[in-house]
Order: sequence, then structure tokens, then C-alpha cells
Amino acid sequence: MNEKKAVVLVSGGVDSTTCLAIARHEGYEVFALSFNYGQRHRAEIEAARRVVKALSVREHLILDLPLDAIGGSALTSTIEVPKDVPPDLMQNRIPVTYVPARNTVFLSFALAWAETLLAPDIFIGVNALDYSGYPDCRPEYIQSFEQTANLALKECVEGRMRIRIHTPLIEMTKAQIIKKGAELRVDFSMTHSCYDPDPFDRACGRCDSCILRKKGFREAGIADPTQYTQ
Amino acid sequence: MNEKKAVVLVSGGVDSTTCLAIARHEGYEVFALSFNYGQRHRAEIEAARRVVKALSVREHLILDLPLDAIGGSALTSTIEVPKDVPPDLMQNRIPVTYVPARNTVFLSFALAWAETLLAPDIFIGVNALDYSGYPDCRPEYIQSFEQTANLALKECVEGRMRIRIHTPLIEMTKAQIIKKGAELRVDFSMTHSCYDPDPFDRACGRCDSCILRKKGFREAGIADPTQYTQ
Repeated sequence: MNEKKAVVLVSGGVDSTTCLAIARHEGYEVFALSFNYGQRHRAEIEAARRVVKALSVREHLILDLPLDAIGGSALTSTIEVPKDVPPDLMQNRIPVTYVPARNTVFLSFALAWAETLLAPDIFIGVNALDYSGYPDCRPEYIQSFEQTANLALKECVEGRMRIRIHTPLIEMTKAQIIKKGAELRVDFSMTHSCYDPDPFDRACGRCDSCILRKKGFREAGIADPTQYTQ
Repeated sequence: MNEKKAVVLVSGGVDSTTCLAIARHEGYEVFALSFNYGQRHRAEIEAARRVVKALSVREHLILDLPLDAIGGSALTSTIEVPKDVPPDLMQNRIPVTYVPARNTVFLSFALAWAETLLAPDIFIGVNALDYSGYPDCRPEYIQSFEQTANLALKECVEGRMRIRIHTPLIEMTKAQIIKKGAELRVDFSMTHSCYDPDPFDRACGRCDSCILRKKGFREAGIADPTQYTQ
């Protein structure tokens, strides 16, 4: 079997898991990439291990990145994670859970691995529609990064490879993403979304990520398998 | 004193040290950034510590990056470092010392720190002229990365900051860089260039980096303080 190879960024949340299922469905042999970057919700990594196993990838690489040495985010420092923000207000500000340059850092490691594997396709589950807060989730950013990537790599400059950043979820609402995942038989009970889980990794139910997850399942008309503490 | 802040990438070689001296000369308060990325020439980090101390920066951050988990380069794996390649032949190929996506990875961490510090100026000592092998040292790559950066960061998208990537050495020959450094009183005995030093961190004198260093000093008419084993 000669499958096409792809590097897929997998955080273990609803979006990246659905993105991974799409890549598998499209026939890619998947090299999954996850990051331990000092995020307070390390439960992500365990979720990533579970979904990667369930979706039979070729290899799973988990890299330690010192983004917490830089800080600047509620996810990597002691800044408090906001709670109980209504979804319509989330649209109006970039939240403190924004991590400086996170997707640029993540995609740059994906590039390095893609070149080493000669795997020109990179999948990232960014989403600009239902959660437009993060600047590095927008189509104009992704297009620009792709252009930079093709100028950066030896294999591209010498004409043997062309990097393509796939963002299958970028124009979807959270409800549409959940429906798509369900259609591809994703078991969402394996995924983790909460930014601020309790010591037993149970979701808080009140951070932006939990609120959007709940809303997404509700709007999709699909039962949310998550056990929230609140 | 209210100095302008800049993030400067410092590897401890001739180029990045001269670049740092230029940033200081231009009046920037410098936040120096170095990386331990599994390179075989870790003597770089010691050199970076020395030059950063001599050039009085505000802060020096040394980050561990797992580029060796990805491999694909003679600098981060067991691929052998080429020796005795004549400089005119170096121009014709991208050498195996190329590290996939290295400058994209380095610059993405510089971006994260720049945003956290609100320091829009980033200096990198890339050089396209005398050593045109690496694709991520070319002006078109740097310009594209700068564009991507300004789409990636919250502070940029919200109009409070504009990232500028400074590459003062990009059009200079190695000899011109050495002359410039000497003019700014850089003590080159503190710097390290060799890709494949011996266990006592002494330069081999035969890798591309040593050969270009020797040639640069010779053409600049300045004595090379390096003790080469060959």
C-alpha cells in the first residue's frame, strides 16, 4: 500500500480530532504531532494519545516546547482563565488564553518534520468562524504561513516538494465540526477541551473552551459525553 | 533611560555576535535568545553566554528545543559533517548541515518573546551572500516570514505593534562582517563557528563553517584568534 503521508497536529480536542479523522478518511498515512508546551491542561496530551491510537496513525511524536519560559498567556502562566463569558462576547476580544505565536511555533515544527518525512501535506484543525478570537487561526494567516514555508525548506526550494497546509475546519461552526466528526465515527468521549480541568482532569464547564463545546454539541443535536464538574 | 527593546538571536558565532553588536550600537536594549537544539556543536551555547555577557544585554534566554527528535541534518543526527569542501563548491548545493525549518522554528520563538516583551524589533544574523546554501537565510524568505508574523500576533492584528525582522548582515561577505565586528570592538576569540569540534571544543578547521571563517579573516586582513586542531 502506498498511502500519501501527512503531518497532522493533534491536541486531543474536538477540532484536531475531527481534523485527524478527515485526514485518515481522505486516505493519508498520518504522522501525528502533539506538544507539551507547559499548558495547564496537560490532560490534552493524554487525550491526544487516546485519539491517535483509536484512529491508527503511523507514528505519534510528542515534543516538549518551552513556551512557558516565555509566558504571556493564561494557559502557560498564572494568569487566571476567564469563566462564564457568554459566546457572543467571546467574539469581541482576543482572550487571555491566547498564547503568543503558538500556531507559528507549532507549524514550524510540523514543517521540520514534514521535510524530514517528505510529507508535503500538513493538517491543522484551526477554525475561524465559531471562535474568531485567535489571529493565527484565520485563513489569511494560514495562507501567508504556507507561502513562507515554501520559501524556507530545502526540498521546496529545490523543487521536489510543495507544502500545503490543510485547514478542513476553518469555515465550520463548532456544531458542524461535531457533526462531521460524528459522521466519521469519532468517539468524542476520548477528547478533552477544558482549559482549566480539576486535579482529576474533569472539565470545569465554565471556561471559553467548555462553553463552546457544550454549545456545539447542543446545536449539533448530539449528546455531549463530557462529565463537567459544573 | 528609555531604550528601544529588541530580541536578538545569538548562536555565539561570528555572524550573530556581530549582529548583536550592531543592535547594541543602534541603541537597542537587547533580549538575547539562544537555543540548545541538540546540535553537536554545543560549544555554541558557551560562546553565546560569553558574547552576551561582553555586550551587556538586558536578558539572555536559552531554550531547549527538540529538533534532534526530528533529525534530518548532520548537525542533529549521526549524518557525518562534510570536511575540506572548497568554498566555491559550497555555493552549488545546500549542505547536509542544513537543519529542516531551523530559522522558522527560531524566529517563531523570537516572535513569541517579542510579543510578550512588546519588543517589535527582531535581529537575526543571516547572510545570503557568502554562504547562499541555506534557503531560510535569503531575503525573500525573511520578508515572507515578517509578513506572516504581522498576521500571527494579537498585538500586531490589534494595531499596537508591527514586527520588523532586521538582517543587517544579509548582503555582506564574511570578510565584511568580520571587519564590521572588529570596528564595533567585538572580541572574536569569544565566538565559536565549528560544526564538529573535538571533545575540548576546539575547532576542526575543516568543516564548511571553519573554512568560511578562516577565509573571512584572511580576506578581512584581520588575525583569526581561533585555535584550529588542523
